[in-house]
This record gives sequence, structure tokens and C-alpha cells, in this order.
Amino acid sequence: MRQEPGAHRVLTGDRPTGPLHLGHYFGTLQNRVRLQHLGVEMFVVVADYQVITDRDVADRLAEHTENLVLDYLATGLDPDRATIFAHSAVPALNQLLLPFLSLVSVSELNRNPTVKDEIAHSRQSAVSGLMFTYPVHQAADILFCKADVVPVGQDQLPHLEVARTVARRFNERYPHADGTPVFPRPEGLLSAAPLLLGTDGTKMSKSRGNAVALAADEDTTARLIRSARTDTERRIGYDPVARPEVSSLVLLAALCQDRRPEEVAEEIGDGGAAALKRTVTEAVNEHLRPIRARRAEFAADRGYVRQVLRDGAERANAVADATLDEVRAVMGSV
Amino acid sequence: MRQEPGAHRVLTGDRPTGPLHLGHYFGTLQNRVRLQHLGVEMFVVVADYQVITDRDVADRLAEHTENLVLDYLATGLDPDRATIFAHSAVPALNQLLLPFLSLVSVSELNRNPTVKDEIAHSRQSAVSGLMFTYPVHQAADILFCKADVVPVGQDQLPHLEVARTVARRFNERYPHADGTPVFPRPEGLLSAAPLLLGTDGTKMSKSRGNAVALAADEDTTARLIRSARTDTERRIGYDPVARPEVSSLVLLAALCQDRRPEEVAEEIGDGGAAALKRTVTEAVNEHLRPIRARRAEFAADRGYVRQVLRDGAERANAVADATLDEVRAVMGSV
Repeated sequence: MRQEPGAHRVLTGDRPTGPLHLGHYFGTLQNRVRLQHLGVEMFVVVADYQVITDRDVADRLAEHTENLVLDYLATGLDPDRATIFAHSAVPALNQLLLPFLSLVSVSELNRNPTVKDEIAHSRQSAVSGLMFTYPVHQAADILFCKADVVPVGQDQLPHLEVARTVARRFNERYPHADGTPVFPRPEGLLSAAPLLLGTDGTKMSKSRGNAVALAADEDTTARLIRSARTDTERRIGYDPVARPEVSSLVLLAALCQDRRPEEVAEEIGDGGAAALKRTVTEAVNEHLRPIRARRAEFAADRGYVRQVLRDGAERANAVADATLDEVRAVMGSV
Repeated sequence: MRQEPGAHRVLTGDRPTGPLHLGHYFGTLQNRVRLQHLGVEMFVVVADYQVITDRDVADRLAEHTENLVLDYLATGLDPDRATIFAHSAVPALNQLLLPFLSLVSVSELNRNPTVKDEIAHSRQSAVSGLMFTYPVHQAADILFCKADVVPVGQDQLPHLEVARTVARRFNERYPHADGTPVFPRPEGLLSAAPLLLGTDGTKMSKSRGNAVALAADEDTTARLIRSARTDTERRIGYDPVARPEVSSLVLLAALCQDRRPEEVAEEIGDGGAAALKRTVTEAVNEHLRPIRARRAEFAADRGYVRQVLRDGAERANAVADATLDEVRAVMGSV
């Protein structure tokens, strides 16, 4: 499958480890919908290969996956235009893993900062072969559909570099007979994600319960924001360095209302944390209202959600099988 | 697929890197046919996952694979009883790789002597992710069909240990609801392979051109044996330690004639190297004559050889898919 010049193809996705929250929404989901409106072809992978060994997740994997798709649909991803699929539903991805594994060295995988991080944070013996080869699985996700653009955060750049290395080496060793390369070299699209903190002042995280889920109801949202850490200064201002917690709340309201954070802070003025939290709660609930309404509609029809995944898998399989055929042809082998 | 108690299932196979020779024949092929006659169920994998990056092999992979099957058929493997298949034709094997990778640690893979060996013999940076994960691919080959017996040489025991570890950990973490394990723990069947040297006095090897291929013609066989290294002592004896080259030739004749090597040596007596080589050449050509005749018959019908591989792949896929379903069921996931 060769693409027309100028046409971009984007690969993006998430691990199905729990509900998406406002950090994901302002960090990446909004951008995806923007890219979709620009007419970019998009593949969205539910990256379920890394979570299979997490017992808590695995037991509810189908549920997590469907909830992820609900979040996608609610925020505006259009399954007629974006191919939404689960990694596990596309066997050719794991066939591509073999030649790709042959193109990266053990020392290169050892140097990957994410793997290093994992090694540092766990007992050495606990780094599994699956975690170790993670960037190569991700390379298969990116390259199978010949994505040339991958939206990434700063911390994911080393992973993308593995995919770029695999693409470059594959193209050098196994060009088409006419010399054209099989894979594009995917470029990272660094998203300028706003720095939103969790309600406890640390990084927003699915597992810490410090983030407002897209799917949460309005009361839960209000309760969570009411519990947010602030500071003792009555006057509300926007100064992310000196006052990170307050500034994060101000920014959240601003993002929801599509205003400048300074403007939001000015308006609250001496109202203190209580007024700030009321403003944020209203802004969030208002912004998410149509999204949550759409989500509820889709959630009432699980059959449709499953159909989205089936259709996506069918399209992804067709693309992956074609790429695998091409890979086998140029390699002259399996 | 649960097996009847007492029924053994054997997994064995070869890399499709070139023609099988007398070392393979007396080392493993004869044993396979013996096991087949004992009524053991056998799976024979053409392990084409490790050779895909070897350009010299990859270009002729289909040919190598078919020649391997010809060697199997010629020596008496019965495709109605043994399932002969190529790894690349069974996608579920690479699906099993993911959970299996999660069950071994990077440090365990680092400790694998074969991988260590590879690291020692090459520049560190040249050890690919594919080589590093080799024992896990092999574990998938062994466990997918629930083989409980794997014929191995001494040097392959560490690889088998990885498969045993994967089976044990998988069974511990993911037992059936009734507590029964999914996988048997495969036992190694250490074959007492005779120590046959190549004609240059070193280990017989496909790549060194120092071994008589099963498929070679009688003249080529004679020429190769005539070129074999011997020693200057005229009297022929059987003393593998003091006279390894001469003893290897004596042993080869003895194996072909199903006699004791001492008896063969005694018979040649003072005939010297020339008489020894005549004896060996005749013994080898005589022993291989019916095998080569069968091989030529099968070789005239490549369509049949391909059909054997197709049938084998179909059976292997059915078994692999069933195992993958079972794995997904007990893992409650992908």
C-alpha cells in the first residue's frame, strides 16, 4: 500500500488500563479530533499487549477496551474515518515482530530510557522479556500501517526512535526492486500538552485516583475538584512555577472555557480556593456535558462499540496483511 | 487438547539452513523414525524464524525448506503420522510469544549460554533482539503442541530449560479453573549421538563442507571421504581419543553396517587409510542407497512435498489455535 504524496497517516493509541481523564483529553484526544478534521488518516491502537500480564487489568480487559472506545467516540473520533482496533486482534503485528527484532540489538534495547527506568524502579530480575521488547512491539504498531506521523510526549521519543531505526535499517537491507523503501520514517508530532496536575499536586494518573475521568458524573467531578490541593494565599493567580497546584486548576478552567488562564485568575481574584474550585467544577462539567451525553448514548449500545472494534480490526488486518506480504516479498522469505 | 495419560508427544525439528548430513542422520533422524515406529506422536518444526535475516539462506528459504522435508521423507518420517510444518506458517506461535516473553526476565535470557556464546563470538552490538529472544520462540514451538518429550543434544539443554521455566510459571499463574495445568513440562531426551567428525577432523557442519549430505550422489560421497584427514599409522584401529580422525571413519562405517567399530577396524587391519576409505565409502553409499532412491522419487514430485507442508501447517495451526484459545481463556485476556 503506497500512499499518495502529501497524504499523512497518523498512528496513535492508548493502553487499556482504565478510564481516560482530563489529562488525556487536553493532552492528546483533542488533538486527534483536530487531526481528523484536517482529513488526516488515523489508526488508533488499543495497545493490549503490554497489559496482558497485569492481573487486575487482564481480568477486565474487554471492559477496559470497550470503555476506551467509548471515550474515543464521545470525544469525537469518527470510526468511519479513524481505524480503531486492538493490537491482539491483528495477528500480523506479531509476525512483523520477528524481522523487526532482528534489526535492533540487545544493547540498543538496553539503552532505551523507558526500559532503563523500569530496571531502576524494579528488581533487576523483574524486567520481563516483554517489557524489554516493548519498543519493538510499538514499532510494529507504527510501521504496519506506514504511519508517517506519531503524536508523542517528550518521554516517548526514545520509543519512536526505535521505530525510526527499524524503518531505516529495514529499508536499507530490503528495498523494493526499484529501490523505493517499504516504510516511511515516522516523525514525532510533539504535542504541547498543557501541564495539568492531579488533585494531589502530582502527575495525573489513572492509578492514583487524582484525575477527573471523562466518564465521571458531575457530582463525582465536583467532589474530586473540591478535594484538590491548593495553597493558603487567598488571591488567585496564574504562576505555574511558584503556585503549581492553584495554577493547574486555573489552567484547567481556562482550557475548558477556551480562555487565557490569566483572565480566569483575574476574574476570581480574591475569591480564594473555594471560588476557584467552584469555577473549575462548573467549567469542567459544562465542557464535558455534551461529551458525557454522547458517551452515555454510545454506552447504551455495547453492540455498536464491539462492531466498531470488529470493523477496525478488519481494516487493520487488511492493511497489516498487505504490509506483511510486502515485507515477505522484499525479504524473499517468511 | 488434553492428551491421554501415557501418550507421549515429541517436538523436534531443524533450521532450514542447508542439506542434512550423516551427522544429523545418525544423531537425530534415525531416532525420530524409531520414535515414530514406537507410536509416539511427533511434531517436526522447520524453524525458519531464526534464518530470515541470513541473506544467503533467506533467498533460497523455500528451496531449503523443501529439501529438508525431502530429507525427512527419505529417511522414513511418515507425514501421515508426523506433523511436519514451517514455523512461519503457524501465526499463533508468534501470538504465544507475547505471554511467554512476559514470563522470563531479561537477566534469565542474558544468562542463557547460547546467547552468551553469541555475545562472546560477535561484537556486543551485533546480538539482535531476535537472537536474544530465541529460546522463547523455541519455547512456543515446544509448548504449543504440548510436547512432553524433546530430543536434544547437550548444548541445547539450556534452551529447553527456558521452555520448562515458561511452562512452570504459566501453569502457576494461570491454572485451569479445576487446577489442572495448561502445559506439560517438557523433558529432554538426551540422545547418545555418536561423535562423528567432519572430513577435516572438526565438527561436522553444514557450512564447512566437511560432511556427506544425505542427498549427495555416490561419486561426491566417494570424493569427500577420499579427502578425509587420517593419520600416518598404517594399522587401522578404533581409539577415539588417540586417533580421532581414523576412529570417526571407522565408526561411520560401523554405524552404516550396524556393526561394532572394533570389528570394522580389525577387518581392515594393515590396509591403511586407503582401504579404510574404500570401506567407509562403500558402507555409506550402500546404507544411503535406498534412502537416496526414495529421496529422488519424492524430489521428482515437488507438488507432493509442498502438500506435506500444507497438510502439516493445517494440523499445526489447528493445534496452535486450540492452545492459544486455551491460553487466552485461562489468562482471561488476549
